[in-house]
Amino acid sequence: GEFRVAVLTVSDTVASGAGPDRSGPRAVSVVNSSSEKLGARVVSTAVVPDDVSKIKAVVQKWCDTDRMDLILYLGLFPFSNVISFNEGGTGFTPRDVTPEATKELIEKETPGLLYVMMQESLKVTPFAMLSRSAAGIRGSTLIINMPGNPNAAAECVEALLPALKHALKQIKGDKREKHPRHI
Amino acid sequence: GEFRVAVLTVSDTVASGAGPDRSGPRAVSVVNSSSEKLGARVVSTAVVPDDVSKIKAVVQKWCDTDRMDLILYLGLFPFSNVISFNEGGTGFTPRDVTPEATKELIEKETPGLLYVMMQESLKVTPFAMLSRSAAGIRGSTLIINMPGNPNAAAECVEALLPALKHALKQIKGDKREKHPRHI
Amino acid sequence: GEFRVAVLTVSDTVASGAGPDRSGPRAVSVVNSSSEKLGARVVSTAVVPDDVSKIKAVVQKWCDTDRMDLILYLGLFPFSNVISFNEGGTGFTPRDVTPEATKELIEKETPGLLYVMMQESLKVTPFAMLSRSAAGIRGSTLIINMPGNPNAAAECVEALLPALKHALKQIKGDKREKHPRHI
Ligand code: NA
Repeated sequence: GEFRVAVLTVSDTVASGAGPDRSGPRAVSVVNSSSEKLGARVVSTAVVPDDVSKIKAVVQKWCDTDRMDLILYLGLFPFSNVISFNEGGTGFTPRDVTPEATKELIEKETPGLLYVMMQESLKVTPFAMLSRSAAGIRGSTLIINMPGNPNAAAECVEALLPALKHALKQIKGDKREKHPRHI
Repeated sequence: GEFRVAVLTVSDTVASGAGPDRSGPRAVSVVNSSSEKLGARVVSTAVVPDDVSKIKAVVQKWCDTDRMDLILYLGLFPFSNVISFNEGGTGFTPRDVTPEATKELIEKETPGLLYVMMQESLKVTPFAMLSRSAAGIRGSTLIINMPGNPNAAAECVEALLPALKHALKQIKGDKREKHPRHI
Repeated sequence: GEFRVAVLTVSDTVASGAGPDRSGPRAVSVVNSSSEKLGARVVSTAVVPDDVSKIKAVVQKWCDTDRMDLILYLGLFPFSNVISFNEGGTGFTPRDVTPEATKELIEKETPGLLYVMMQESLKVTPFAMLSRSAAGIRGSTLIINMPGNPNAAAECVEALLPALKHALKQIKGDKREKHPRHI
């Protein structure tokens, strides 16, 4: 069957209803319009505020209970201490940021995906060097934390497309996919 | 106001007076001559020997007490067991090397900066692959550990310039800088 | 004297005699045919099944007892849960994979080598983004975990050649090699 994808938008603004979600639908559109190449479709979406425990709860459920194959997780907190400032500047806990939270959930790192997202993003803007993306595998789910900017997220998905279906097959343990060229 | 930068030269030779510091002044010059683009100036410099505890003490003070915005930290101990050999080969503790020390001080990793420094350095020399740079955020200070070679350090600063001011603003929590293109 | 290299092939198929080792001999050939440039020769080879404890035992002996200068370690378990599936799907322990095992053995990471291997591999195939190579230093041994595919492994060695001899000299503590251009 098709691979099942979940898309998470992390944004205080969107979660509070103060603004539209432009990133999530854009990512859904990229995945679904690539369904032939990717063999996947989006079956679940969610919006959560910039709150690490809420983010982790959703991602963990999607991995461990819903057995998603792929989670695209839009909205980084690169560099800036966004979370603490959104909390009014109190309780400043510099480690409480999303890439770190993602790393806690991930069992196996996938540095090559980060490399490719960085490589492609830098072709668009030097500000990409400020991205602190994280990616890895939890159980049989691939989690990719990518920029919240709609264009950037779309570009990241495009950059990963050439190998993403293959990755999902490998994680599912398809033995025919075990020894592809170059890995 | 302007961002405050501190430059640390790590070198036994320079610290002992046996040789001139060519790296530190070069980095200061690059920063100060880019002050318009970077919005920063060097307000403090120091030279320490290849001694992890001394390095950490200076960097920690600059972060936690002096509230520097940016620390450029020149002098890597890539690959070689420099520290142990400088101690005469006794007390060989392979983990006691600077990138590892930097990692202990850093609260949030900034892998994109490492990517860009590596990308640009490799255009100059294949030996750049031996660099073991480290970079990240401690509190509201960005720490960048870069090669000790004067030219290499200058090239690294140049490579980061297009996004460095932006990075420093983000770390300070300037909300207008919260959602730049691509992050 | 010359640097001493050991080559490890990790493969259930080869270890059980069900198939030939094409990767190991290819890597040996690349190293020995570059002996002038690299100043190294292969003095030991081994084949082990996809079993983390056996892999670690060989690598650790080569480092700590045999004092190899360089270990090329062919056969990644990227992405896929290869080990657990080879064990029949029982006892699934997602952390029990080789890059993680390598990381446990490594005392100092060498991210630049990973960068270069990824950069060069991506020029050949986008599937390279699925590689989860690991590299680093244990004592005075450089360990490089590279793809098991014979062509990919050869390409990775070629990509590292311009700086590999230099790396091995640095690890041995040759002070004349302490401050090369750019590190
Ligand atoms: Na690159």
